Parts: sequence; C-alpha cells; structure tokens
Amino acid sequence: MVRVVEPSSITAVINTADDMVLHGLHISPDIDTVTYTLAGLDNKETGWGIAGETWNVHAELGRIGGKNWFQLGDRDLATHLYRTQRLSEGASLSEVTAELARRRGVIARLLPMSDDPVRTRLTIATDTGSEDGDAEIDFQDYFVRHHHDVSVSAVRFAGAENAKPAAGVVEAVESAERVIVCPSNPLVSIGPILAVPGILDVLQRRRAQVVAVSPIIAGTALKGPADRLLRELGSESSALGVARLYAPWVSTMVIDEADRELAHSIEALGMRCVVTPTIMSTAERAESLAREVVGVVL
Amino acid sequence: MVRVVEPSSITAVINTADDMVLHGLHISPDIDTVTYTLAGLDNKETGWGIAGETWNVHAELGRIGGKNWFQLGDRDLATHLYRTQRLSEGASLSEVTAELARRRGVIARLLPMSDDPVRTRLTIATDTGSEDGDAEIDFQDYFVRHHHDVSVSAVRFAGAENAKPAAGVVEAVESAERVIVCPSNPLVSIGPILAVPGILDVLQRRRAQVVAVSPIIAGTALKGPADRLLRELGSESSALGVARLYAPWVSTMVIDEADRELAHSIEALGMRCVVTPTIMSTAERAESLAREVVGVVL
Repeated sequence: MVRVVEPSSITAVINTADDMVLHGLHISPDIDTVTYTLAGLDNKETGWGIAGETWNVHAELGRIGGKNWFQLGDRDLATHLYRTQRLSEGASLSEVTAELARRRGVIARLLPMSDDPVRTRLTIATDTGSEDGDAEIDFQDYFVRHHHDVSVSAVRFAGAENAKPAAGVVEAVESAERVIVCPSNPLVSIGPILAVPGILDVLQRRRAQVVAVSPIIAGTALKGPADRLLRELGSESSALGVARLYAPWVSTMVIDEADRELAHSIEALGMRCVVTPTIMSTAERAESLAREVVGVVL
Repeated sequence: MVRVVEPSSITAVINTADDMVLHGLHISPDIDTVTYTLAGLDNKETGWGIAGETWNVHAELGRIGGKNWFQLGDRDLATHLYRTQRLSEGASLSEVTAELARRRGVIARLLPMSDDPVRTRLTIATDTGSEDGDAEIDFQDYFVRHHHDVSVSAVRFAGAENAKPAAGVVEAVESAERVIVCPSNPLVSIGPILAVPGILDVLQRRRAQVVAVSPIIAGTALKGPADRLLRELGSESSALGVARLYAPWVSTMVIDEADRELAHSIEALGMRCVVTPTIMSTAERAESLAREVVGVVL
C-alpha cells in the first residue's frame, strides 16, 4: 500500500487485543509486525520478528530455565523495553507507537485501536484433548504456545466494553477517502477492533467507503487459524462466510480469483464484489492488490 | 571465601536497596554481582555484569532512542526477564534468588536482606552544580547516571521501616560460627541491611562473632564513593571512621597494613583489630584475606 499511495496519507488502525505482558514487558505483536514491515525490517521467512535477528537473550533465558516459549529476539526486545519504560513513565500506547514508528523511519501513521487494555480470551473446547480443555486462555498462549492447534468454543475481548478508541481512530475512519480492511483474521484480528465501542458505529456510517479483502481463499486461510476458527465459531470458512460477517459495515468485498463462483452470492448480500488475485506472495503482487483495492470505484 | 570454607556452609545476606525497576524489569544489581561472581561468570574488567557479554539489545535500544544509561548485557537481561516473570507469578525475591543461584551452579546460600522493597534515596547537595541539586534521587541514578560524581547531603532507605528480614536472615546471623562484614560501602551497602528492623538487633547480640573488613585503605576506597560519602555525611574517611560506625555491633575490625597506625585507636573503641593485606587484587589475595578473616580467634 505504501508503494501505491503517499505513505503519509495512510493511517493503520491496529489490533492490540493480542498484546501481552511477559517478563514484565508490554508486548504488542501486531503493532510491531506492522512497524517492522513498513520499516523494511520484517523477517519474511517467519512472518514475525526482525530479519537477521540475534537470539542471545532467548538462549540464555533457556539456559537458566526461564519461560521461553514466546521467542523474543534481541532487537525485538529493545522495542519491548522501550515501550514498557515509556508506558511506566505515563506515555500512552498511541504515543509510544508513534515514537517507535518514527524512530524506525515509518511514515504512515500507526494507531493502536485503543490505549485501553483489551485482551482476546479463547475458551478451549473440552473435546480437544488438551489439558486446557474448557479453560479460557490468552491469545498468545493459544496462538504460539498451542500453535493454534486446539479447538476453540468461544472468543471474547476482555476489557473491550470499557475501552475507548485511541485518539484519531474514529476521526481517521470518518475522514478517510476509503477504509481498507486487510485480509486478516475476521474473528480475532478484525473482531477486537469492532468490539471497541464507537468503531463499528463509524464503520457503518462510512460503509460505502469500506473495502475488505477476504483472508479466506478457496475455503482456507493462507496462514493462521482463521478458517478453523470460522468453522468452530459457527461461520462458513469461505469468502462468502466472511462477507456475511462483514456485510453490515463493508460495502465491497475483494475476493480471490479462486472464489469467482462466490461473487453472485456475495452480491446477493447487498455488497459489491471484486474478483482479483489476492495472494501476496511477493511485494509486487502485494502492490498489485493494493492498486486494485485503491482503484475500486465506490 | 568459597575456596576457604565449604561453600554450602556460607550464607550471603545481600543488600537489595540498590534494586530498581527499569524498562519494567526488576534489577537486583548486588544479588546479580554476587551470583555471577560465585558462578565464575563475573566480568573482572568492569566489576559488574557477565564476562564475554554481548550488547545487541543495548545497541538497538540506543538506536531507537531508548534510555540506555544503565547498560544491560544480553545474558544479564535474561536474568532480569526471569526474575521479573517469577515475581509477577507471585514468587518472592528470596525464591527467585535461590532459583537463579541454583541454575547458575552457585552452592552458597544467597539471601536478599528482605523480600520487601527498600530503596536507597540520596539527596544531592545544592552546591553540587548538578541540575539535581537538592533533589532526592535513586541509587542507580546517583551511582551510574551521575557516576557518583556529585555531593550527597543525606541518605535514607525508603521502605526500610516496614520491611522484614527475608526468611533465614536473622536465623543465619543467630547461628553463624562467624559473621563477616565484607569490605563494602558502610553507608549505602551495609547501611540498608542494618536499616531492616531486626537485623541490627541480632548483630548486636552476636557482636563477639562479627568481623568486619574495612573498605577504606589509607583514607580512600579502592572503588566507589565510600570515602567521599563518609566525609559528606559526617564521618571520617578512614578505617577508624568505619570502626566508629561499626563498634556497636562489630567486635573485630580487619584493616590493611597501610593503616597499621590506626590499630590502637580502633582498639580504644573496644574492638579487636587485625592488620593484614586486604587488597583483593587477585583471587589468591582474596583467598588469603578470607583465610585470615576466618582464622581470627574470637
């Protein structure tokens, strides 16, 4: 997207319900992934962390028997130390996010969905065979420690009801030329943003300008548990299933060519449907998709 | 000392008033120095930290503009991550200290003076020329950020009045064959330990078994600000000045050969005085001093 439009014209509203405190450090995985990606630091092999990272702290933590299921690289750790120190000094997550983005040379504006704590909590299904059956666990515990390889029976966003959108979030949606919903997990990445009071309202008001890219292609998610979670939580794991969830506040669905036969059903929901290649396997393909999404006539 | 007596017979009671929270991490500099030294990991050039340390997190923190006046090496950071995580899970500082010592292969028993927070606070003299004149600052701020290169007009140990000795501290002093006060800063390293209610009492009861090594040799401290602090806070910067402070609870002062002429004045305080080489410039000299101190006839 930053290759297609002027980066300074972009505001990214980022899920913070995956945030966690580990070793006393405030970790914001989604903010960091967006920051590292836009700074050109992202590790393209793993899909998380910093390219060319070193693991000295992690290795030592393992040697002394510390919790190290959540891998923290040395450069990545500096981000968490910085954030935690600034938060302890009274800075808001928005301020810290802006500081870190600026220090990393990111031009686009990055906003956490909220400065208030919201935490995704997943209930693990009892039939899952896991020792955590019927327990409610944190997102990173589910995603990283369990490798999202357990059945989920419920998801909630603890704290969302009392959270306020971060300063600028509602205004950005209100004034945006278009609002693009990235091909992210509808339930646990987009869902928490919608759960912050005020955000869904403004999206509904701007529905005509909201374009979503389906994260489901030919029934499956390219990565992560979106397909499985959709099925487990009562939706259909397809671009149509996503469109049904989004229809109240999204006017335009962008779906992959592999799902061309779903276009009519999506249009029957009262949505526009654009069919195009959506697999961002290279920076060039990502740029083409961004160009397509930006070019959709609304 | 661990070369002179059976290590498992040693209990070290360690000052925790230098502890700090930085970047959200609980840092216990004195506990770590004792642990690293007994584990053979200590950096003999710097006198702090781990030998052969790497600085990847520190360097990155500097690049992104984080606070990095307190240098944290990568392996050292693993200690702080471990400690902070365990404290957040409800473990006591004593428990964490024991875990880290065991994991590092330390046989001697290491006890923090207290599991309760005690913090050394120093008032910087107004005539010091520092922007912090008349301000009260934390120990590490004084010691590291200011390189203890400012005048101090007062020292207090915040929280000490409500702190309890850690489990085992009073019992260790009560039952020890002898209590050895290491050549440490009398005011800001030994002082906080005495300020924890109950510890001075038991030391006074065991006075006959308490042997202290003077940290002041020929009027100066080999390292750190002990000499300057003694003068600024109304004592004499000499082995005799230290002996005056210690006389109520120490029966035997060990002083360096350079201070032989002070022996009579120290004995006049009602103390025994042993004159011997006390500069621990090599492990062998340290061992000789330990042997001397352990061999003093009480």
